[in-house]
Amino acid sequence: MIFSSFDFNKKEPLYIQIEHHIKESINSGLLQKGSKLPSTREVSELLNISRSTVVTAYENLESNGVIKSLKGKGTFVSLELKNEDKAFNIKWDSKINNYANICESLDIIKTELPWEKGMISFKSIAPDETLFDTEEFKRSFLSTWSFQGDKLLNYGYAQGYKPLIEYLLMYMANKGVNTDGKDILITNGFTEAFDILINSLTEPGDKVICENPTHNTALKIMRAHELNIFGVEMTQEGMDLKKLEDKLINEKPKLGFIIPSYHNPTGIVMKGEHRKKVLNLFEKYAVPIIEDGFNEELLYSSSHVPPLASLCNKGNGVIYIGSLSKILFPGLRIGWVLADKKLISTLESVKRARNIHSSFLDQALLFNYMNNGAFNKYLKKVRKHYREKYNFTFSEVMNHIPNEFIMGEGGLHIFVKLKGISSRKVLEGCYKRGVVFTPGDIFYTDGSGDDTLRLGFSKVSLKDIEKGIRVIGEEIKKITLSIE
Amino acid sequence: MIFSSFDFNKKEPLYIQIEHHIKESINSGLLQKGSKLPSTREVSELLNISRSTVVTAYENLESNGVIKSLKGKGTFVSLELKNEDKAFNIKWDSKINNYANICESLDIIKTELPWEKGMISFKSIAPDETLFDTEEFKRSFLSTWSFQGDKLLNYGYAQGYKPLIEYLLMYMANKGVNTDGKDILITNGFTEAFDILINSLTEPGDKVICENPTHNTALKIMRAHELNIFGVEMTQEGMDLKKLEDKLINEKPKLGFIIPSYHNPTGIVMKGEHRKKVLNLFEKYAVPIIEDGFNEELLYSSSHVPPLASLCNKGNGVIYIGSLSKILFPGLRIGWVLADKKLISTLESVKRARNIHSSFLDQALLFNYMNNGAFNKYLKKVRKHYREKYNFTFSEVMNHIPNEFIMGEGGLHIFVKLKGISSRKVLEGCYKRGVVFTPGDIFYTDGSGDDTLRLGFSKVSLKDIEKGIRVIGEEIKKITLSIE
Repeated sequence: MIFSSFDFNKKEPLYIQIEHHIKESINSGLLQKGSKLPSTREVSELLNISRSTVVTAYENLESNGVIKSLKGKGTFVSLELKNEDKAFNIKWDSKINNYANICESLDIIKTELPWEKGMISFKSIAPDETLFDTEEFKRSFLSTWSFQGDKLLNYGYAQGYKPLIEYLLMYMANKGVNTDGKDILITNGFTEAFDILINSLTEPGDKVICENPTHNTALKIMRAHELNIFGVEMTQEGMDLKKLEDKLINEKPKLGFIIPSYHNPTGIVMKGEHRKKVLNLFEKYAVPIIEDGFNEELLYSSSHVPPLASLCNKGNGVIYIGSLSKILFPGLRIGWVLADKKLISTLESVKRARNIHSSFLDQALLFNYMNNGAFNKYLKKVRKHYREKYNFTFSEVMNHIPNEFIMGEGGLHIFVKLKGISSRKVLEGCYKRGVVFTPGDIFYTDGSGDDTLRLGFSKVSLKDIEKGIRVIGEEIKKITLSIE
Repeated sequence: MIFSSFDFNKKEPLYIQIEHHIKESINSGLLQKGSKLPSTREVSELLNISRSTVVTAYENLESNGVIKSLKGKGTFVSLELKNEDKAFNIKWDSKINNYANICESLDIIKTELPWEKGMISFKSIAPDETLFDTEEFKRSFLSTWSFQGDKLLNYGYAQGYKPLIEYLLMYMANKGVNTDGKDILITNGFTEAFDILINSLTEPGDKVICENPTHNTALKIMRAHELNIFGVEMTQEGMDLKKLEDKLINEKPKLGFIIPSYHNPTGIVMKGEHRKKVLNLFEKYAVPIIEDGFNEELLYSSSHVPPLASLCNKGNGVIYIGSLSKILFPGLRIGWVLADKKLISTLESVKRARNIHSSFLDQALLFNYMNNGAFNKYLKKVRKHYREKYNFTFSEVMNHIPNEFIMGEGGLHIFVKLKGISSRKVLEGCYKRGVVFTPGDIFYTDGSGDDTLRLGFSKVSLKDIEKGIRVIGEEIKKITLSIE
């Protein structure tokens, strides 16, 4: 009640003081446009003054357009706020800390050339949503809903939706991982899993080892946490073993981060024996590994490649991050961490402190979808689709883009090393002609890679792949000619 | 191919070396139970040795139970891994940093008395899911699905689902907030919003001001970020103004955190004029405020109470965190931050670095549900339901629990201050009789509050409320008698 703290002074007429008080209440925001005022009777009783004094004040305010009486409804504020100069302002720029500033400065979406409608874009490595089996997903929703809809909308557990956790433990066991003494934490995709791990296991200045180049989101997260990143050069086999061992000996890193299958951005699939050697080196120097299981499901060849996590038996030295986001439903943001049981328990507390848990509805839907066999059917379909598209894109690149080499053997993208030409310069020309791609330098730990580029083809039509790659080839030739 | 890196020595028979190599490949995990071995012909060709040597090796291995030939299918590994001692092990305890350790040590779920089936629990302040309108939610799903299902399952934007953002901007404008120059970021509930803000705006050691007591999750997050927390004592009006100003002058805090409506845990609703005075003090000392809009939707009385964010006009000094998790669908984990536009843009980059974005499916479903009017109908229903339950619980407490005072006027819980008796001691007795509640000390910034307790009633039946509160009252009397 706006008059409850109202004190009269003895100098001004009472009706003026009432007018002034109401105006001030409006300007301070306490009374807002549309707020109902107490009736004149209520005010006169509360302040113990004559009702006619209050009526006079209200009439004056109404004639000034400040308030308005509606017959049978009461009196309402009709004026907007006025003294907006006296706003409570803070210079937020000066309040933002180093972490947030790094996140923003490395947020490539904010610095890259703006996408425009009609462009051919090779930037995305997201799955093609037109392949999603939305009818099957709807069935998952309806069957899940019928018996536990209300429960799924209430709070769940930080570790995740139990049936999904159990399903994924089996899923990992089928990949050859010994899950004894291990457990799973459900996260909002790979990104949250990696961020929680870095946030829980490192301090600014800690040294980490990874492939060079590597996944740029992982690089961004490690940089935002002010880690000291040592990239190990890659051959077609994966990390160079000699250089890896040198870094393990000389830098004594806290952890390693490795993407053994369909490595982002190179597409390299580390072969079984090379995997074992890499693992043995980390073990020899007692440096734990975070393994990114990225795109492991997207095997184009039939050979089984065991994850690093499956090669250390009962050992707990490898933390495995799983995500299906490059294949299935990235919009749901569901990923997982498989690791030592006690470590998962600590990470569960961290997850709870960060956002309580991931959406239980989404976890239940994903579980239902995977568990009823729809996932395997879908996988077969997309493997074939993407393999064909990969082969087509690969041959177009070989035909049109003069390159030093093309790495890798699959995934939803192709990584190209040009012959000493800056890919950003090529991009400038392409952009004018409506074609964009990802310059490779963002994947490098050491600022190199300016003559590389990544072409994501998952969402580009065959016609546009053909046209887009031709344009890139032409722009490269233009630059080559201008140099010669 | 397991023999591609195989070198013979000159000492041992070839077949022994082959056996040994296969056993080692199994023990190292390179070959797993069920893996298919190359045929004897393939091995003999590859290694350029006689096929009978390979056959001998395979036969020996088969008689040892290591491998098994299946007619017409090939030869397969049949042994489990053996040398599990030589596992790659890491002592994770020593790798976990201070942040993660604090998160775990303050994770009350891990330290509190374990809930058992059949207990009467006053611990939760989650909504009662049996009130959820799951049929209406299903309709939201089906209508959303029919025209954009596939898009919702693919990647979205870090800031959030556009229609939901626009809806919430209007929703906030209807609460009287001037949204000019402001914007919204969608988060995984209040917890993520607060964690992102603390993570982006503070450094360890920074001073912050909040109510004492306050929301224990907020306390946990501030402690995990090693902030210096200054709690301001509360009266029935909210923060004590004199003590607030003293702290603002003496401590020069970086920010304030305030829960103006249905304060957790006290239930106090700060009145309009007190709000304005609190805001003016923060403005006077140029200290920005994070406002927790918690339970604002759960007004039991009809008076409109404007959020602090609406009282600073065009000013950007207040960051508002909104969440419906105590009323609607907490399992979806959708909340929002309303703040200065430029600040939101930075926080958007932080959100992208942490988990890319919140589930687009959930955001679209929530938008559809709120936008089609179902939300308002639901709100009316639950307000009435919870108000009646509040009144019942309140009178039961007044009848059975000897208290110094009960604070607040609503919400989904009641906060009681006992007469100098430790609530944890009361809890011990109650636990044995199957009744649990939340000891109030976890909400205090300074270790006090051991004679307070919080009773969440949203999910407890009237019968259990009656019985549970009687038990609590009896246990208090026992202790009182034993002291006298």
